[in-house]
Amino acid sequence: VSRFDLDEMIAPLKYENGVLHLLDQLRLPTEERWVPCKTYEEVARAIKDMIVRGAPAIGCAAAYGVAIGARQKAPLDEVCKTLAATRPTAVNLFWAIDRMKRLGTTDAAALEREAIAIHDEDIAACLAIGEHGAPLLPEGTVLTHCNAGALATGGYGTALGVIRSAHRAGKKIRVYADETRPFLQGARLTAWELLKSGIDTTLITDNMAAHLMKRGEIQSVIVGADRIAASGDTANKIGTYSVALAAREHDVPFFVAAPRSTVDLKTPTGAEIPIEERAAIEVTRIGDREIAPRAVKVKNPGFDVTPARFIAAIVTEAGVARAPFEGALERLIKG
Amino acid sequence: VSRFDLDEMIAPLKYENGVLHLLDQLRLPTEERWVPCKTYEEVARAIKDMIVRGAPAIGCAAAYGVAIGARQKAPLDEVCKTLAATRPTAVNLFWAIDRMKRLGTTDAAALEREAIAIHDEDIAACLAIGEHGAPLLPEGTVLTHCNAGALATGGYGTALGVIRSAHRAGKKIRVYADETRPFLQGARLTAWELLKSGIDTTLITDNMAAHLMKRGEIQSVIVGADRIAASGDTANKIGTYSVALAAREHDVPFFVAAPRSTVDLKTPTGAEIPIEERAAIEVTRIGDREIAPRAVKVKNPGFDVTPARFIAAIVTEAGVARAPFEGALERLIKG
Repeated sequence: VSRFDLDEMIAPLKYENGVLHLLDQLRLPTEERWVPCKTYEEVARAIKDMIVRGAPAIGCAAAYGVAIGARQKAPLDEVCKTLAATRPTAVNLFWAIDRMKRLGTTDAAALEREAIAIHDEDIAACLAIGEHGAPLLPEGTVLTHCNAGALATGGYGTALGVIRSAHRAGKKIRVYADETRPFLQGARLTAWELLKSGIDTTLITDNMAAHLMKRGEIQSVIVGADRIAASGDTANKIGTYSVALAAREHDVPFFVAAPRSTVDLKTPTGAEIPIEERAAIEVTRIGDREIAPRAVKVKNPGFDVTPARFIAAIVTEAGVARAPFEGALERLIKG
Repeated sequence: VSRFDLDEMIAPLKYENGVLHLLDQLRLPTEERWVPCKTYEEVARAIKDMIVRGAPAIGCAAAYGVAIGARQKAPLDEVCKTLAATRPTAVNLFWAIDRMKRLGTTDAAALEREAIAIHDEDIAACLAIGEHGAPLLPEGTVLTHCNAGALATGGYGTALGVIRSAHRAGKKIRVYADETRPFLQGARLTAWELLKSGIDTTLITDNMAAHLMKRGEIQSVIVGADRIAASGDTANKIGTYSVALAAREHDVPFFVAAPRSTVDLKTPTGAEIPIEERAAIEVTRIGDREIAPRAVKVKNPGFDVTPARFIAAIVTEAGVARAPFEGALERLIKG
């Protein structure tokens, strides 16, 4: 796999002439519309509204947002604060903003080069994650939850990068994609991009995974991550923990794929990861269709935490960490 | 609780002057529309299309369907065959049709009286299930999956009947309702009828249950059943098994509530229960909104099987069975 192949591939963001263009992930798969962001405020709003989502992609978008803020000659502290206040769980957001800050300049051109570097490195990391992870996947059917694909990253994807690399290496891999309520990233995004890549994909509702594992129809699980604690506990899209419980019950290996920027050694365990609570309307409406009585109360946590003991391996661009993760992750991050 | 109270309550079906009126469960909660069925073919179509659903309610509807067929002077074998071919998993359907057949008459008035008796007995069974089950629920939050309520039965409900009886008895009970993809019975039906009954209800997506149990926010689970094997293995709406796995992991008691007609002693274990595969469009569309690419493949099993070992108790109108279920269930059914 080279960058050359990626030119024809799916990308969630493009930066041109001081404008960040985001592929509107709210409108996929029925419409492919690009949203131009000319101000850092527009970038922050797009992250909050999930026009761009996925921990690594959010990191890239925020980095470009800082560069755009510098072009606007806005106070950089204010720019960074606004961008950091968009979403609480994914650590890549804070990692990217910190890296931009650490450059110690308000020069727009220098900040732009750094944002492009963050984006380029993220794509390179995904390609390396794919290479490291592909040998782990047994032939047969792999289940994935949410979208940890090209659309969630600079390009290529983390969990879906591993699936793409295994597929390109000639492994016989089929995919079950959890639809991933409430936001339907699996139905709308994962199914869309895997079909584009010519990978055999079957859509299921989230609550079918355990039943299919019981029937022996799933050989492995691979998901992305929004934050990995030093212990290996992994925050990812709500529903991931449920899949991990089922995988353990049925002896199906459960893998996590993420760039090193998702590992947060300052967060000791999953208990310290803040979980975003999102709006009720994401649960009670789909599009403009109301699917529940208006008076009903709703819970809508965006993420859950899968304990490290349920995870067979964590795949990063620097290699594969296996349990016990504590030492292994630190070596990979710092190595 | 008396029949008098139920007069003001929710009912999914009414039989008047040879016409079966069904509350259209496809249109709830946004519209309360009654569909009149004047022929047994219309009743069969309504069961197949899930205008009426829920194992006990399907049994009642099919019984009325046989009576209507007799009024049409249709060959009763043909009537029964058509009604039995609508849905494969819920055993109450076959139980009710068999009971109508065993009457050994083609007299419409006699068949009508038998259908009314089946319906009346189902409501009485739900009230008794409620009385037997209410003491089992600990105070706090109970999770339910799908709709095992008034709308799924002759009235009052099985799992929701237990919740109603606990609530009426003054227990402090809150409910988490799984939305229950793909058909959204939890969001559309359970939330609707619990709000009508004034019970504190919070809607969640199916994939949130495990996370909330991990946080200690759920004290018990109660669900209905579509078929209970002699072993106690229980077929219920897809996703029930996933909830049972999470409940066991978190030491949350998992209860099943169903009339004796749901217990099928001729089915030895869950492995012998046929699982209905339903249309892809239930997963890829919500209303007229497409939520997935058209080209994607879909799996849509309507039910799964929860092994008996995950079930703390099965509540029937004749009392509560506890593990080991094999002897206990047979005693309850035949006793």
